Amino acid sequence: MTMTTAVDTRWVYAFGGGGADGDASMKDLLGGKGANLAEMSSLGLPVPPGFTITTEACVHYYANGKTYPADLTAQVAAGLAQVEKITGKTFGDPANPLLVSVRSGARASMPGMMDTVLNLGLNDQTVEGLAELAGDRRFAFDSYRRFIQMYSNVVLDLDHHMFEEILDEHKERLDVTVDTALSAEDWEDVVRDYKAAVQRDLGEAFPQDPQAQLWGAVGAVFASWMNDRAKFYRRMHDIPESWGTAVNIQSMVFGNMGQTSATGVAFTRNPSTGEAKLYGEFLINAQGEDVVAGIRTPQALTKASREEMGDRQASMEEAMPEVFAEFKAVVGRLETHYRDMQDIEFTVERGRLYMLQTRNGKRTAKAALKIAVDLAAEGVIGHEEAVMRVEPASLDQLLHPTIDPASARDVIATGLPASPGAATGKVVFSAEEAVLLGAAGEAVILVREETSPEDIRGMDAARGIVTARGGMTSHAAVVARGMGRPCVSGAGEIHIDAAAGEFRARGRTIRAHQVITIDGSTGEVLEGAAKMVEPELSGDFGTLMTWADKVRRLKVRANAETAIDAQTARQYGAEGIGLCRTEHMFFDPGRIAAVREMILADDEGGRRTALAKILPMQRADFVQLFGIMEGLPVTIRLLDPPLHEFLPHTAEEVAAVAQATGLDADKLLRRAKELHEVNPMLGHRGCRLGVSYPEIYEMQVRAIIEAACEVAAGGKPAPIPEIMHPLVAKGEEMKFLRELTDRTAREVIAEKGVTIEYLVGTMVELPRAAIRAGDLAEHAEFFSFGTNDLTQTTFGVSRDDSGRFLNAYIDKGIFERDPFVTLDQEGVGDLIRIAVERGRAVRSGIKLGICGEHGGDPASIQFCETIGLDYVSCSAYRVPIARLAAAQAAIGEREKDR
Amino acid sequence: MTMTTAVDTRWVYAFGGGGADGDASMKDLLGGKGANLAEMSSLGLPVPPGFTITTEACVHYYANGKTYPADLTAQVAAGLAQVEKITGKTFGDPANPLLVSVRSGARASMPGMMDTVLNLGLNDQTVEGLAELAGDRRFAFDSYRRFIQMYSNVVLDLDHHMFEEILDEHKERLDVTVDTALSAEDWEDVVRDYKAAVQRDLGEAFPQDPQAQLWGAVGAVFASWMNDRAKFYRRMHDIPESWGTAVNIQSMVFGNMGQTSATGVAFTRNPSTGEAKLYGEFLINAQGEDVVAGIRTPQALTKASREEMGDRQASMEEAMPEVFAEFKAVVGRLETHYRDMQDIEFTVERGRLYMLQTRNGKRTAKAALKIAVDLAAEGVIGHEEAVMRVEPASLDQLLHPTIDPASARDVIATGLPASPGAATGKVVFSAEEAVLLGAAGEAVILVREETSPEDIRGMDAARGIVTARGGMTSHAAVVARGMGRPCVSGAGEIHIDAAAGEFRARGRTIRAHQVITIDGSTGEVLEGAAKMVEPELSGDFGTLMTWADKVRRLKVRANAETAIDAQTARQYGAEGIGLCRTEHMFFDPGRIAAVREMILADDEGGRRTALAKILPMQRADFVQLFGIMEGLPVTIRLLDPPLHEFLPHTAEEVAAVAQATGLDADKLLRRAKELHEVNPMLGHRGCRLGVSYPEIYEMQVRAIIEAACEVAAGGKPAPIPEIMHPLVAKGEEMKFLRELTDRTAREVIAEKGVTIEYLVGTMVELPRAAIRAGDLAEHAEFFSFGTNDLTQTTFGVSRDDSGRFLNAYIDKGIFERDPFVTLDQEGVGDLIRIAVERGRAVRSGIKLGICGEHGGDPASIQFCETIGLDYVSCSAYRVPIARLAAAQAAIGEREKDR
Repeated sequence: MTMTTAVDTRWVYAFGGGGADGDASMKDLLGGKGANLAEMSSLGLPVPPGFTITTEACVHYYANGKTYPADLTAQVAAGLAQVEKITGKTFGDPANPLLVSVRSGARASMPGMMDTVLNLGLNDQTVEGLAELAGDRRFAFDSYRRFIQMYSNVVLDLDHHMFEEILDEHKERLDVTVDTALSAEDWEDVVRDYKAAVQRDLGEAFPQDPQAQLWGAVGAVFASWMNDRAKFYRRMHDIPESWGTAVNIQSMVFGNMGQTSATGVAFTRNPSTGEAKLYGEFLINAQGEDVVAGIRTPQALTKASREEMGDRQASMEEAMPEVFAEFKAVVGRLETHYRDMQDIEFTVERGRLYMLQTRNGKRTAKAALKIAVDLAAEGVIGHEEAVMRVEPASLDQLLHPTIDPASARDVIATGLPASPGAATGKVVFSAEEAVLLGAAGEAVILVREETSPEDIRGMDAARGIVTARGGMTSHAAVVARGMGRPCVSGAGEIHIDAAAGEFRARGRTIRAHQVITIDGSTGEVLEGAAKMVEPELSGDFGTLMTWADKVRRLKVRANAETAIDAQTARQYGAEGIGLCRTEHMFFDPGRIAAVREMILADDEGGRRTALAKILPMQRADFVQLFGIMEGLPVTIRLLDPPLHEFLPHTAEEVAAVAQATGLDADKLLRRAKELHEVNPMLGHRGCRLGVSYPEIYEMQVRAIIEAACEVAAGGKPAPIPEIMHPLVAKGEEMKFLRELTDRTAREVIAEKGVTIEYLVGTMVELPRAAIRAGDLAEHAEFFSFGTNDLTQTTFGVSRDDSGRFLNAYIDKGIFERDPFVTLDQEGVGDLIRIAVERGRAVRSGIKLGICGEHGGDPASIQFCETIGLDYVSCSAYRVPIARLAAAQAAIGEREKDR
Repeated sequence: MTMTTAVDTRWVYAFGGGGADGDASMKDLLGGKGANLAEMSSLGLPVPPGFTITTEACVHYYANGKTYPADLTAQVAAGLAQVEKITGKTFGDPANPLLVSVRSGARASMPGMMDTVLNLGLNDQTVEGLAELAGDRRFAFDSYRRFIQMYSNVVLDLDHHMFEEILDEHKERLDVTVDTALSAEDWEDVVRDYKAAVQRDLGEAFPQDPQAQLWGAVGAVFASWMNDRAKFYRRMHDIPESWGTAVNIQSMVFGNMGQTSATGVAFTRNPSTGEAKLYGEFLINAQGEDVVAGIRTPQALTKASREEMGDRQASMEEAMPEVFAEFKAVVGRLETHYRDMQDIEFTVERGRLYMLQTRNGKRTAKAALKIAVDLAAEGVIGHEEAVMRVEPASLDQLLHPTIDPASARDVIATGLPASPGAATGKVVFSAEEAVLLGAAGEAVILVREETSPEDIRGMDAARGIVTARGGMTSHAAVVARGMGRPCVSGAGEIHIDAAAGEFRARGRTIRAHQVITIDGSTGEVLEGAAKMVEPELSGDFGTLMTWADKVRRLKVRANAETAIDAQTARQYGAEGIGLCRTEHMFFDPGRIAAVREMILADDEGGRRTALAKILPMQRADFVQLFGIMEGLPVTIRLLDPPLHEFLPHTAEEVAAVAQATGLDADKLLRRAKELHEVNPMLGHRGCRLGVSYPEIYEMQVRAIIEAACEVAAGGKPAPIPEIMHPLVAKGEEMKFLRELTDRTAREVIAEKGVTIEYLVGTMVELPRAAIRAGDLAEHAEFFSFGTNDLTQTTFGVSRDDSGRFLNAYIDKGIFERDPFVTLDQEGVGDLIRIAVERGRAVRSGIKLGICGEHGGDPASIQFCETIGLDYVSCSAYRVPIARLAAAQAAIGEREKDR
């Protein structure tokens, strides 16, 4: 045993020469690129030798004040020595120099986000050796100037424009326009000027010591893990900062050694459509970055695709038939080996093929579906594996109209991608006008500072919604997602002047009724009408969903209250309604007057008179809903929001309402003031209304049971309503509500003489409800976890106000994900776990579901499967996503058990 | 084994005839009265025989739709038969009738709250038998009319005025004024008219069947458990509704059988002062209710007390020397037996003594102290038992000035007893005026609609506070209790017209600067200056606190931020400061300008400039505080409230501030609007400020450590500041804050060259913090449970808004206690338990305390002891209460282990 623990850690894994220390399964440690280089090397494929510094070294680096592990130096030296041995070259040897590339490589692909240095090891001596060895002085100095430029930019943090200007000056002086026109001597001049510029700008010479270069590049790659681009990308893609990146140091091969050299990228299938044809492009006599830089037009790989594109340049198949044949065999082998479409980088150096990277290729949702279904048809993978191959969230792209990717985008503002899909319509600034124009058949986009529950009808009437304020979980965002309306929220660039009937953004003024387009999937607002692509639920979609439904255990329901929502939900495969919010029905213009009359009533009698007017309307809603759902379960939540939400607030609003309804303005204002709350989220709402004013809940229960009786009596499948009480915190509360519900239901059933089954249950949306779930379960037949409010109360964070600090929290790495989007499994999830355990201990068969925003989030659905809930409920448009996520979760759980 | 389970339950326990089925330990089952009657009977004392129907029968009654257990009838019949056997009388026998009393008797004494029926068993036949037996027809009919009146009122629910009117008519007709002037025939007439009145009012005759009478009375006693008085009393005294009452049925003895008969009440010691002298009064030829009714003036028991009062009527000692001697021996025996001061009821029937009740006597806080200390001195009880004898909450009476009980009270309004003690002063309507007049040495009472944080200085300057709105946990109430200022909150009768400089209440108008007195212990507002009694911390108080301190394990700290609070805290025995709220210091007029400048700053630089102005002021505060606390621990909470609390809100306030400070009014208004939050309780506050604007917390940490260095360098005991971060929800947050704190502290320590120890910890006041306490404990050296906010978030209830529904919840029995006053042990407490467990699992020595309002609540302190916290912290004025409660909790815990 040695005394230093660091010696026990292996920081460096070698590959190349027909073998490797690692393999494809070690992505966590070696990053995706490193693991696959090792795998390809072990497969005997032509991989330039190299080694990978592990992600753990990066984690160590950040955990220890940006210092390397003590024994890293020795391990890197050993790795380098092995590469020298395989290649027969020596790092820094002027006669036979080994040159290397230094590339990042995290667990998850983060294309272009982190830094790379090529041609490392070149200096004033080795460049001469390279020239000698290659027999090509021009190539050597071209490589050297590329290295100086790249290294200076990436490691020394110098502006790349400086180098471009120098090169331009030389071209002007030489009167040439393309790089290829420069001779070896010209490049030598450029290199001299580059070095002088570095000396001038940095106050010291460009580093000549290859070891110093190497460690500079390693440090730069580690540092690039924390650059703003990378942070942003991680946040967008839910990649934890704690993972770190690996560093791959690999001997250089050169695609720029003349006409028998080339470099290229390939996909084994079309990543856009999924078509099973080799797809990609290459460049003769070029280095990797030239393909990306777009200075020259790349050539097709196959003859067929060249012809298809009408391209004149020879394809690789035609230009280098032998290498191409070898390449085709290699990529075929890779797809079979990895059992998935591969994204490949390669280089041909003087007629010899080298594989630089392979990875599972990114693809569109459409391609993902096709590839998965095709691979299953080809017998490469099974149905369940096919189900696992499609990212559930990506289905969103398929379920909404989108802007034609080929059309130009005249962006006038960007905000948050709050609800996916695109929509075009005339700008309106009020919910009333949206309703009016909408009723007249006009497509409108509702543009507001922010929305409130009173805007619901207008939001429903609009094709899309834009708000200047508010986050991903603002009222507008949540409601729009529920309705399946595209929405851009928090577009701070938009300055609304409602009085003038216009908004300003990026110096332009858009007047009311002018046409705009919004892209809720990107957060963009465009002037004019963009060309649209309608969603296409292709055969592959149907096939895959059938396979998914076969394996999933969790039922999937929808949150829906209107007929159109319910119909959409069924069309997308919902197996019931998990949340019907009755308050949305209260805002209907035909009812709000009676609702306000009830709120203004001086006593119970007055309230009952007003409620009697609402009863037939509520009943009619439920009759319609039960009819559509044809016997599927429907969970109806009784009145939840505080009563002041139904009243006008400002003096002007009050006056308008008073005039329109004949209600007393003073009384309205006084009542609104009386009902004002400091923290409405924690106020007089939910079942607290039902306890204070039992007559309200009695009316609602009556409406539900009467509707159920009516539907059942009409010969349709008898509905089994699940009557849900919101915001319950105590067993005694649940007992009171259960008794109220049963008493009322029994009355109605006796009056109607129809036998109706129903369940009585509760939202679990307060920490106390979770902790005391056993008490609740004594009286509740089901729990529905209301994870929106549960997240708010568990964190003590108001969704409406969190925008002020949530970004600072995510920037500082305190939150890795917005807990209102993906369930906080450790905290909120632990409370849910406790509630499930304690609820089942008291009532073993209790029905358990989730109906917060998280019900449509794949990671959260995975959690629901793990803790054994019975169903998830989400907005209608997310039902297919939930079905697929539930299937993946079921498969994942089964795998765990193996 | 029998098949019916009901047979297994014993509902009836007999006593009398020198023995009993029960004993004094069975109060839960038999109620206090029943258990003690059984005990006295077993002791061989003269107790009229009878039996007790258990509290379980009452619970059964309410749990089964107000029906009796099936076998109760048989058990009552058996009980009655035994009484008949002992007395030789028969229930309903016209020749030798047994008469009984039917009395309630709950576990806890609820004097006068429930119903009693005496002389039951009388009817038109048995009254003749009673007349015959007693040889006194007048006595028999007097008893009969008493019975009819009492039974009609209690059981038949008839108005007692009806009977009083009839009696008055007879007196008028007979031209007499006192009842004793009525003859047997007169009473017969009265009885006839009483019965006719019952027939008229009820539509049926007064029940003549003694069995029907008996069950009617039993039902009435059970029903009286749920009357409004009883409910209110229970709520006031934290008596659970679930306990139910017992019913005691006992053979009657008559104190109204002539001059050798009497009835009386006695305390074995003076219940007001605690003096060790027999104390009480009696009436010759009277029944129990006559003593209460106050028609005749009762006589003293002892010669000494008669002489002391200068009373002419003979004392019992003089009037009935033999019976008195027996009585004295009996009560002496009872006090020795029960080892506590007894409250006794007795009757003398024709020279024979009967004991009707004994119980531990209620007493004033002062008497409780003296009795406990005296009993310990007499060797009756030990020191620990003495400690257990004083109700901690009662100490509140001793620690504040009170209104002289002898003085008249000119009450003009009543509200909630929000903060104990009394105060007199001139009425002012604004905090500013309170500060001005206060500075001029005037005693003022601040009268406001409600208070806000901006009123803090005014509240501090006032002698007392009255608010027209707000509950027991409103801002005014909480702050006033913290400051030890008497406060009456929610005095809805008060209508303030601040513009006119007056308020109206009960038809009177009180102008500014008029003198009022408030009694924060009763919630009364009085016109004028009432006579005051200053608190007297007598020798008994000191003695008992010494004994308490010896046994308690929990440390007791105070919540304090000002010098005067800290001094008070030490004077009352605080062992440190558990919560110093730094925001109170920010409201100081000398600082608020700099605070506002900081809030208005456009960037970090601007904020730092403003913070630099606040730093020396904060440091000076801490220097003072550390000086006073002389090395005791001081927990300092960094800035907690949302920044908008420091800004003016209305246009007028903004204008005033802008003018006074030169700040830009538009900017102030805009910033206030920007900072406005929908749910400030769940908003941008607590450590979220420290994460968003680290410079604020850095300044505060710097002020704390610089102050500690200064005090230590000055040769005083080195303070060990405990730096506390509020509203932490995540381990990552705590890590960030810990690093910020340590970095800043190290800087200061290096600059000053003084070694200072300090702790860094967190409030646990969010459910997530409790659930993830292990994550927090990785970086936190102490937890302080902020049970105010933890209760708000766990229940999802805002203290500011809960007034709207909390009463409905308590009325409906959903809450038995206000969870903001007494910790909800099942829900919030379970989270605390989880946090303690998970926190200790990660850091075994973590320091644990509580600093919410509950820290001064005895029941909650008991809970803190049970779960093993290290300390409680409460307002300075509650420190003695907490010391005593902690001692009792420690003893209680030890008893549990035995």
